[in-house]
Amino acid sequence: MSDHTDAAVVPTSAHEPPYYAVVFTSTRTGQDSDGYQRTAEHLSRLVRDIPGFLGEDFAHTPGGLAISVAYFRDLEGIQRWRQHPEHLVAKRRGRERWYEQYAIHISRVEHAHGFARG
Amino acid sequence: MSDHTDAAVVPTSAHEPPYYAVVFTSTRTGQDSDGYQRTAEHLSRLVRDIPGFLGEDFAHTPGGLAISVAYFRDLEGIQRWRQHPEHLVAKRRGRERWYEQYAIHISRVEHAHGFARG
Repeated sequence: MSDHTDAAVVPTSAHEPPYYAVVFTSTRTGQDSDGYQRTAEHLSRLVRDIPGFLGEDFAHTPGGLAISVAYFRDLEGIQRWRQHPEHLVAKRRGRERWYEQYAIHISRVEHAHGFARG
Repeated sequence: MSDHTDAAVVPTSAHEPPYYAVVFTSTRTGQDSDGYQRTAEHLSRLVRDIPGFLGEDFAHTPGGLAISVAYFRDLEGIQRWRQHPEHLVAKRRGRERWYEQYAIHISRVEHAHGFARG
């Protein structure tokens, strides 16, 4: 799970493959939005300390879908993040209260490129 | 590139791995938004005819980042879509006018799961 108040306005750069992308797509219940927001901001800071964490992109259509993509150098980093005690607690709360529906796609990036104007 | 007026309010389901996810993150110039929107809707219909296309998720934070994730069964489908003549024209126009910055991550999904309330 992930959210930002300091929403990134620049896409995370393409890195040199291989690396991993964890795609998390969700819709929310609207229940306890404050609790969600606080937790999301806190986790967003915690994940930066995971070795191999490369960055994160987040977008949320108001009233619609949210997508977060977290990038890691290797599966060990993802595994470590998935087992982080505060992340585990948040995930349980997410299923109990916050999420209407979600999907997680853990994937290995094989090709990547970027574009910047000017 | 991708956008929707009929914005999906349900995340695309997790499929049985392996499959592919094309993550496209972008910010826009704000230039020719109508042209962008028309083209995005048109492409969004065209991609559905690509063999192996599994679905697409899109989210856009107002004034901020947009993320689209297109899912394909195999790399052949992605290759076919990347070389589609109308897609090629749209990509050129995207670099000329619409995008401030973007990144593309083409990745192979190795693990996936979903959650739905109730």
